[in-house]
Amino acid sequence: MLLAVLQANAAVLDADANLAAIDEAARRAAAAGASLLLTPELFPVGYAPLRIDAEFDYSGLPALRERLAGIARRHGIGLVYSLPVCDATGARRITATLLDRSGGTLLDYGKVHLFGADERKAFSPASEAPAVVDFEGLRAALLICYDVEFPEAVRAAAVRGAELLLVPTALSAGFDAVPQLLLRARALESQLTVAYANHSGHEDGCDFAGGSVVAGPDGALLAAAGEGPVLLFAEVSGADALAAREKVPYLRERRPELYRQWEAPGQGA
Amino acid sequence: MLLAVLQANAAVLDADANLAAIDEAARRAAAAGASLLLTPELFPVGYAPLRIDAEFDYSGLPALRERLAGIARRHGIGLVYSLPVCDATGARRITATLLDRSGGTLLDYGKVHLFGADERKAFSPASEAPAVVDFEGLRAALLICYDVEFPEAVRAAAVRGAELLLVPTALSAGFDAVPQLLLRARALESQLTVAYANHSGHEDGCDFAGGSVVAGPDGALLAAAGEGPVLLFAEVSGADALAAREKVPYLRERRPELYRQWEAPGQGA
Repeated sequence: MLLAVLQANAAVLDADANLAAIDEAARRAAAAGASLLLTPELFPVGYAPLRIDAEFDYSGLPALRERLAGIARRHGIGLVYSLPVCDATGARRITATLLDRSGGTLLDYGKVHLFGADERKAFSPASEAPAVVDFEGLRAALLICYDVEFPEAVRAAAVRGAELLLVPTALSAGFDAVPQLLLRARALESQLTVAYANHSGHEDGCDFAGGSVVAGPDGALLAAAGEGPVLLFAEVSGADALAAREKVPYLRERRPELYRQWEAPGQGA
Repeated sequence: MLLAVLQANAAVLDADANLAAIDEAARRAAAAGASLLLTPELFPVGYAPLRIDAEFDYSGLPALRERLAGIARRHGIGLVYSLPVCDATGARRITATLLDRSGGTLLDYGKVHLFGADERKAFSPASEAPAVVDFEGLRAALLICYDVEFPEAVRAAAVRGAELLLVPTALSAGFDAVPQLLLRARALESQLTVAYANHSGHEDGCDFAGGSVVAGPDGALLAAAGEGPVLLFAEVSGADALAAREKVPYLRERRPELYRQWEAPGQGA
């Protein structure tokens, strides 16, 4: 399956401009034969937690979602997008959503590990483990940005059967070791493909250095972006994950009953 | 603190030859000003699980330990060695031991994740979380070989306060991504220094490719060996771990109560 990863600069609180960028990326990705397009964290509204908190109109979300579903449907391509949402309890979350080629929702995920004071002011962390769904024969899961830096979050997806982990992100400049080292290790240790789509350029006080990657289950980079806007492509397969798991059975040889004990209150320092 | 890491070829079931190699490495390390010498997995007896199972005389262990303590005492250097042991219940374990400069035992650890059919035939896995002790002002813990490939094991040491993780290993040729990618990621994600001492050359059917490393809390390599025998040196510090934890508070921002739930039986695939 051909996967497309959008790395681009979003315009803060300018959904029209950002959806136009997603639409154009979806058109190009579909024309190239891609089955699925991954876009960065909060891309439709721009990465700007404090301005989202102060200015974003959550009542406009259903219309925004319908426009995003229309992009998937129009180009006949799966789509991962990330939005701020206000859930039924009034809690505000950073979320990601996986759509099928007809614009139907396959999966919603809420960010569990919020990064920094601005995100914690604007949002509450979610608590659900990443769920896994079938996307055209590949078992897929979602995480968001800082989540993937925690091996525990990737493990939770892997033990639930994920072969492809789709990660919208907003990684500031100066943290190159995250995509170049941690992402590759996540893929290798949990034996799945990890795709990581970042912003480029400047958005509301943040500088983004791109560096989006797709890492395979052996830890190798299947694709890697530079700093600027780009549409990356990588061929991904569930067979690669299964082959890696046969070679070194990390997932089977984990000892979760011990890990649970080791995490118990009072066990740490 | 200056740390020395021995990468060498052991002679299978020839403790005299292997202890002579450790003795010589301890002499050189102490002369260079090192406070601590890390040696590979099962080095005093050679890495040969099936031959250890069939031929090793466990009744000779106290004498072997006394000779190893004598090496530390004689050169005035801390020492990490790894031995097969038979515990009070009769269970055979792969263990590692940390000695202080006077040859006193600071810490014993039993390997939790056994690798491959030969190890599982000759040994039983231990179940204790890695403990942490003070070694001359640095909080130190032990893991062994395959253990460190599991992020959960390194986390258990880190949340117990480890700043320096000492890992005897016996990594076969062909797994370069373990030291070059996973070890660096372990150091970065759990924000401690990881030292990894491997065998070189051929021992009883296994080919070892060296590649011993010391990785700092930012994921950078402080020292890295090639394939052949070598005594590596690296300057390590607890301050580096604390500085990394201030910059990105991974350990504080973990959500162990969720991880425990996510590991619960029936939660996985």
